[in-house]
Amino acid sequence: MLIHLSSWPEIDARLKDGGPLSRTVVVPIGSNEQHGPTGLLGTDWLCPEIIAHEAEAGEGSLIVAPTFNIGMAQHHLAFAGTISFRPSTFMAAITDWVSSLSRHGFDRIYFLNGHGGNVATIEATFAEIYAEWSFVEERSPFVLKLRNWWDLPGVNSLCNQIFPTGHGMHATPSEIAVTQAAYPDRIKTADYSPRIAPVGPIRDALDYRARFPDGRIGSDPAQASPEKGRRIIEAAVPALIRDVADFAGEVLPGV
Amino acid sequence: MLIHLSSWPEIDARLKDGGPLSRTVVVPIGSNEQHGPTGLLGTDWLCPEIIAHEAEAGEGSLIVAPTFNIGMAQHHLAFAGTISFRPSTFMAAITDWVSSLSRHGFDRIYFLNGHGGNVATIEATFAEIYAEWSFVEERSPFVLKLRNWWDLPGVNSLCNQIFPTGHGMHATPSEIAVTQAAYPDRIKTADYSPRIAPVGPIRDALDYRARFPDGRIGSDPAQASPEKGRRIIEAAVPALIRDVADFAGEVLPGV
Amino acid sequence: MLIHLSSWPEIDARLKDGGPLSRTVVVPIGSNEQHGPTGLLGTDWLCPEIIAHEAEAGEGSLIVAPTFNIGMAQHHLAFAGTISFRPSTFMAAITDWVSSLSRHGFDRIYFLNGHGGNVATIEATFAEIYAEWSFVEERSPFVLKLRNWWDLPGVNSLCNQIFPTGHGMHATPSEIAVTQAAYPDRIKTADYSPRIAPVGPIRDALDYRARFPDGRIGSDPAQASPEKGRRIIEAAVPALIRDVADFAGEVLPGV
Amino acid sequence: MLIHLSSWPEIDARLKDGGPLSRTVVVPIGSNEQHGPTGLLGTDWLCPEIIAHEAEAGEGSLIVAPTFNIGMAQHHLAFAGTISFRPSTFMAAITDWVSSLSRHGFDRIYFLNGHGGNVATIEATFAEIYAEWSFVEERSPFVLKLRNWWDLPGVNSLCNQIFPTGHGMHATPSEIAVTQAAYPDRIKTADYSPRIAPVGPIRDALDYRARFPDGRIGSDPAQASPEKGRRIIEAAVPALIRDVADFAGEVLPGV
Amino acid sequence: MLIHLSSWPEIDARLKDGGPLSRTVVVPIGSNEQHGPTGLLGTDWLCPEIIAHEAEAGEGSLIVAPTFNIGMAQHHLAFAGTISFRPSTFMAAITDWVSSLSRHGFDRIYFLNGHGGNVATIEATFAEIYAEWSFVEERSPFVLKLRNWWDLPGVNSLCNQIFPTGHGMHATPSEIAVTQAAYPDRIKTADYSPRIAPVGPIRDALDYRARFPDGRIGSDPAQASPEKGRRIIEAAVPALIRDVADFAGEVLPGV
Amino acid sequence: MLIHLSSWPEIDARLKDGGPLSRTVVVPIGSNEQHGPTGLLGTDWLCPEIIAHEAEAGEGSLIVAPTFNIGMAQHHLAFAGTISFRPSTFMAAITDWVSSLSRHGFDRIYFLNGHGGNVATIEATFAEIYAEWSFVEERSPFVLKLRNWWDLPGVNSLCNQIFPTGHGMHATPSEIAVTQAAYPDRIKTADYSPRIAPVGPIRDALDYRARFPDGRIGSDPAQASPEKGRRIIEAAVPALIRDVADFAGEVLPGV
Repeated sequence: MLIHLSSWPEIDARLKDGGPLSRTVVVPIGSNEQHGPTGLLGTDWLCPEIIAHEAEAGEGSLIVAPTFNIGMAQHHLAFAGTISFRPSTFMAAITDWVSSLSRHGFDRIYFLNGHGGNVATIEATFAEIYAEWSFVEERSPFVLKLRNWWDLPGVNSLCNQIFPTGHGMHATPSEIAVTQAAYPDRIKTADYSPRIAPVGPIRDALDYRARFPDGRIGSDPAQASPEKGRRIIEAAVPALIRDVADFAGEVLPGV
Repeated sequence: MLIHLSSWPEIDARLKDGGPLSRTVVVPIGSNEQHGPTGLLGTDWLCPEIIAHEAEAGEGSLIVAPTFNIGMAQHHLAFAGTISFRPSTFMAAITDWVSSLSRHGFDRIYFLNGHGGNVATIEATFAEIYAEWSFVEERSPFVLKLRNWWDLPGVNSLCNQIFPTGHGMHATPSEIAVTQAAYPDRIKTADYSPRIAPVGPIRDALDYRARFPDGRIGSDPAQASPEKGRRIIEAAVPALIRDVADFAGEVLPGV
Repeated sequence: MLIHLSSWPEIDARLKDGGPLSRTVVVPIGSNEQHGPTGLLGTDWLCPEIIAHEAEAGEGSLIVAPTFNIGMAQHHLAFAGTISFRPSTFMAAITDWVSSLSRHGFDRIYFLNGHGGNVATIEATFAEIYAEWSFVEERSPFVLKLRNWWDLPGVNSLCNQIFPTGHGMHATPSEIAVTQAAYPDRIKTADYSPRIAPVGPIRDALDYRARFPDGRIGSDPAQASPEKGRRIIEAAVPALIRDVADFAGEVLPGV
Repeated sequence: MLIHLSSWPEIDARLKDGGPLSRTVVVPIGSNEQHGPTGLLGTDWLCPEIIAHEAEAGEGSLIVAPTFNIGMAQHHLAFAGTISFRPSTFMAAITDWVSSLSRHGFDRIYFLNGHGGNVATIEATFAEIYAEWSFVEERSPFVLKLRNWWDLPGVNSLCNQIFPTGHGMHATPSEIAVTQAAYPDRIKTADYSPRIAPVGPIRDALDYRARFPDGRIGSDPAQASPEKGRRIIEAAVPALIRDVADFAGEVLPGV
Repeated sequence: MLIHLSSWPEIDARLKDGGPLSRTVVVPIGSNEQHGPTGLLGTDWLCPEIIAHEAEAGEGSLIVAPTFNIGMAQHHLAFAGTISFRPSTFMAAITDWVSSLSRHGFDRIYFLNGHGGNVATIEATFAEIYAEWSFVEERSPFVLKLRNWWDLPGVNSLCNQIFPTGHGMHATPSEIAVTQAAYPDRIKTADYSPRIAPVGPIRDALDYRARFPDGRIGSDPAQASPEKGRRIIEAAVPALIRDVADFAGEVLPGV
Repeated sequence: MLIHLSSWPEIDARLKDGGPLSRTVVVPIGSNEQHGPTGLLGTDWLCPEIIAHEAEAGEGSLIVAPTFNIGMAQHHLAFAGTISFRPSTFMAAITDWVSSLSRHGFDRIYFLNGHGGNVATIEATFAEIYAEWSFVEERSPFVLKLRNWWDLPGVNSLCNQIFPTGHGMHATPSEIAVTQAAYPDRIKTADYSPRIAPVGPIRDALDYRARFPDGRIGSDPAQASPEKGRRIIEAAVPALIRDVADFAGEVLPGV
C-alpha cells in the first residue's frame, strides 16, 4: 500500500490485520541535490522511491510511506537546485516521522535510503530517538532500520559487475541508470571531462566545488543506460521485499 | 522546470537567463493526513503538486521545486497514516528550504499550499526568517509568499458554485475531486453518516476524533467527481501562472 | 481577580470554589511596538489589559493573569522602542505560561490578544502544545483559546461604524482611541501625511519602513478620541465577559 | 520616559539627543510568584516597576522599558498563581529584548531586578549573549548590567535597619512593604505560623513546599507597613538614578 | 572509586551496597581557560580533580566521576588555548550527565567546581532540571549540589591567611599553588606587571582583554608555591569528605 | 604541547611560530561507558588520550587539547557508570570546541576518536558546522578530521594479527590491552561466559542489555595483556604523528 494514495480506514484495517508485514512501514528517503552534469537533482530520492513503489506494486504487501525527499546535502549547496537540511533539522524531521508512524502502531520502521550523505545523520537520529527511552529505562516500542538501496543483498555486486570502472561515489552510473529506467524522457547527456571524476574528502560547499567542479566524485555516468537501470531495479526489488520481510520477522530478545 | 527532474546546469542556466520568472520558484507544500473515509492521505500535498505540475507542463516557464509533503497535522494523528511535524520542526524545515533556494539566487519563493492547518506555522516561519534580517537592520535578500491553492483568484468561488452545500473545511469535495481527476484509479467510496460532517474547534488529536469521528469537518465528499476536479484544476492552473507572474514582477519599494 | 495583586491562598481558594469560571484564566497578550506618529508603543498590550481589567473590576468573577506584553513584532523593528520576540521565543514563552497556569488547575486558558501580528505564532504555539499530547495519544488536560479583542462579538462592527473610512490595519483609530480613553494625559498629535496611510504586504523591518514610512498601515488615527475609545471599551467589556463565560461553560465531547 | 506610553518618534528623538542617558534603558524585571500568605503574586515585578517608574517620574531623564514580568520561579510552582519560565526560555526571551533594544541604538541596558531566583539565569544569559561576540572576535556593541533593587547603594542597609530580625530571603517584609506603599488597597493579613519562616535549600517545587509550607523563607512579613515601604522606595529611587547615571557614564577601555 | 578506572560491575555493586555514600557521586567540574602569564590552562578543572582524587584515594569511600573539563569561559576566549561552552551548551551537557548518573541510581550528585564563571550557568541548569519535575508536579528523584572547592569549610580562610594581599579573583595564587603542588614540573614564571592585576567587570572577550591584558584579575600569582598548594589541598581534602558525607546524609522533608 | 598543562602565552607563541604543525590541534575524544565485566569505564577516552599524550611526549611537536571524555553512549546506559550525551548535546558540545579552537587560529582540528558509537554523530556535527558556511556561500576557515585510533595506518591489521579470533566490536581485547598497558594496577579479571560474546544490532539500552548481558559485543577480552597493549600503542603513536603531519600539510584546492 502506498500510504499517500490510501485512505485512513484502509491503513487502519491493514495495521490490524495481523499479517506479518502489517506493522512494518517502508520510508523511501533521499536528498534533492546535484548529480553532476547530467544526473537529475532528484536522483537520491527518486531511486528509493522507484524501487519501493515497484516492490509495493508487484507484491502488494509492503506499506510504503510518502517519500522523504530532502536530506543532508550541505556539501552540494554550491550547485543550483540543491536543497539541504542542516543535520539538526533533518534529525527533528525524522524524529517527527517516527513519532507519527509509531503512534499508529507501526513498530518496525524501515528507511530505504538513497543518499550516502544521509547515513551519519540518520544514525545519529536513531540514537537520539532511542536515547529518550534509554534515559528513562524503558524499552523503545519500535525498531528502526536504515538500509541504503545499493546495500540491499546482491545490488552492490551487480553494480560493480555492470560498471567495473568509473562507478565512483557520487553521480554514479548506477543511480543515474535507475532514474533513466524510470524517467527515460529525462535523460541528459554531456561531454564529461575528465571522463572519470576525481575523488577526495567532503567538507563545505565551496571546498566541494573546488575539488569536484562538475559535481561528480569518482564516477563516469556516461556508462548509464535505461537497460542497465532496469537490471539494477530488478535486482533491488526482490531484495527489498526479502529484507523488509526479514526485518518484520526479526525476533526481539526479551520481549 | 521541475527541479527534481532537471540537472544542476539546467537550473543554473535558467537562474541566469534574466527572464521574468527566472529567479522565482514555486514550492508545492501540503500535509500527509487523513481526509475522511474516502480521501487520500496525500490529498493536501497532491493537490498543490497536481496544479503546479500542470502549470509547469503547460507553459514551461515556472520553476517548481519538489513537493514539501509533510506539514502541521497534529490534530489528525488519531487517524492512521497521518504524518505530522511539530510546528517547531516544520519551521526549521521550511527555513532550510528557504536558505537553500535563496542561496542559489532564487529571490522570490512562492509556497503553493494545500493544507489550511499549515497556514499559521508557515506565516510564523516567514516571520522567524525575516526576523534574522530585521534584528540586524538588513533587508532580506528574498521575498516569501504563501498562497493556498483554493485562494487562487477565482478558485474558491468556483468551488462554492460547484458545491453550494457541504463544502466544509476538511476532506472537502473540492480537494477530493482534484485528487480524483489526477488519480482516477484511486477513487474510494463510503456511506457517509451523517452526509454532511459536523463542525467545531480544532484542538488535540483525541479531541478531534471525539468531535469528528470519521475525520471530516463540515463536508460531504460524496459530491466529488473527477470531472468536477478537472474543472477546478483548469481554473487553478492559469490562476497560478498569473499569480506567480504577478509575484515575480512585483516591484519592491526602496530597492 | 488580578493574579498579580492577589496572594497565592486567594488564587488557591478561587481555583477550588467550584464556580463556573473558577478554573478559567484570561491572559491579556499583546506587543510593544510602534503605532505610528502618535500611537503609544504599548498600545497592543494596553488595549487587552484595559478591557480585561475593566471586565474584572466590574464583575469580579474573571481571573486575569499579568499582561503578556511582548509579542511578535519583527516587522516593526525599524522603529525605535519596538521590542519583539522571534516566533520561536514567543512560542517557548507562551508554552511556559500555559504549563504554569495549567499546573495549578486552570483548564481553560483564554488569551485576549491585542496584536494581529501575534495570531499566527499563537496558533502555531497552540498546535505545538497540543502536539505533545497528540503524539502520545493522550487528551490535553486543558483547552486554549485565542480571541482578538476587536473580534469580540459586536466590537468590530462598532469600530467600523465609528470609523467608516481610514480604520486600516495598524495604528488604527480604534486602538488609539482605547488607549486615549485609558491614558488621556498621554494623547499625542501629529500632522499625518498622507491622512490615510498606504497598505501593502508585511515582510522584514526595512521593507516595512520603506512601504510605511511613519509606521501606520491604512489608518487615519486622527479620528481617534477618548470618547470613542470609551464607547469601544464599553462594548468590549461585556462582550469579553460573555465570551469567557461561554468558553468556561463549553462542554467537551467525550470527556 | 516610559517607552510603552511614548510614541516611536519620541523615543527616536531621545535616542539621538546626545544626552548622557539617551542611549541607556532601564528594564524592570522580576517574577510572578507566590510571596507567602499575604504577599502579592506580582511582588517581584511590581517592586522594580514601582521604583523605576518613580525614578522616571521624578527626574524625567530615565528611559524605562515595559516591565519584564515573568522570570525563573520553578521552585514556586506548587503555589497557585505562580508563572515561571524555564531558564532556557527566560534566556531566549531576555536575548530578544536585548536584540530589540540594542538594534535601536541603546548601548547600555540596565536590568533592575526584583527576584533573587532570576540572578543566575540572567547572568548566564549575559554570558550567552556576549559569547556570540566573543566567538567571532568582535566587541559587543552594547553593555549589560544587572542590579537587584535591594542592592542599590544604601537600600540593603536600610532594610536591615528597619527589619533587624525576620527579614529573610523570600516574602521579605521589605518587598511586601514596597508593594503596600504602592497598592495600599491590596494589603492582606494572616496569622503567620511560625512568625519567622524556616530556611533551607531551594530545589524543585514539591521539595520547596515541603520545606516552606506557606511559601516564605526566613521572613516575618507582618512587620511590613506602607510607611516602611515608602522609606525604602525613597531610598531606592535616588540610588537608582545615580546608579544608572554611573552606568551610562562608564568609560569602556579601548573603545 | 574513580568511575573511569572501574568496571561497570564494580560500580553496580557499590550502588547496591547500602553504604551511606553509595548513591552519591562527586563530579569534578571546571573550565579550560587562560590563567594569566603562568597559570595552566587546565587550572580550573585540575584543582577540583586534584582534590577529589586525593579524597578518593585517601579514604576510598567517595565515588568520583570523570572530570567535566570544559565550562563557561566565553570571556577568556581572547587568550589562546581557552575552550568554552556557550551557557546553553553547558546546560545541555550538565543535564545529560545528571540524566545518566541518576538513571543508574545516584540520587545525590555533588559538583565540585573550580571556576567561578561556571556558577551562574550551573545554578541555571539545576533550575532547568528541577523545572521538568516542578511543571509536572512530581518530586525530583535526585538532589543536586554545587560546591566551589574554595568554599569548602575552612579553605577560603586558609587561602586568605596565606595570601593576605593579591589573592584576587582570577589566576589566584591559591589555584596556581594547587596545580604547582600536583604538577611541579609544569611551574612557569613571569615578570608580572603590575604585580597585582587590575579588577573590573566581566563582559565579552575583547572587553576582558582590554581590561586585563595578561588575563589576571586582581591577583599576584607570584606568591604561589607548591608548598602552599599542598597546605590548601590538605585543608580541602578532609573538608570535601565531610561535606559530601553531610550531603549524602541530608534528610529530605516529606520523603 | 598539552594545552591544559601550558599557559596561554605558550600556546599563543606556538600558534604564531609558523611551524608545520603550529595551527593543528589534536583532540582525544571518546566516551565513558561500560566495557564488559573487566574493561574500565573510561576505556574509550583513555585510549586516545594514552596514544596522543605519548605522541606528544615523544616528539613534542603535537598540540594536544584536553580529552573530550563523554560521547554518544545511549545504548550502554543500562550498565552502571555509563555517562552519555544525547547526539544533539554532543553536537552542540563539539561545535563549541571547534568554535573555541578555531577562534585562536587552529585551522586544522583533528579528533582522535576512541568510540565507534561516536562516529555518526561526529560526522553529523562536522556537516552541521560546515553547513553554516555552505549556506552563506563562504569557505570554512578550518578543516575538521575524524580518525579512530584503530584506523590509524597499520593499527587494525596489528590488532587482528594479535587477536585473530574474539576481537569483536565492543570491549575488544585491543582497547582493554591499551588501558592495561597504561594502568597496570587497574587490571581486572572475570570468568567470561561465553568466552566470545554474541553479536547483533545496537538499539536502545534495554534491548542492548537483553542481547549482550555482560556488555561485550563479539569480543574475548581475556586475551588482553599489558604487553600486547604496549605493542599496539607503539604502533599507534608513530602512525598518529604521521597522520597528523599529513593532515597539517594537506593542500586545500583553490585556497
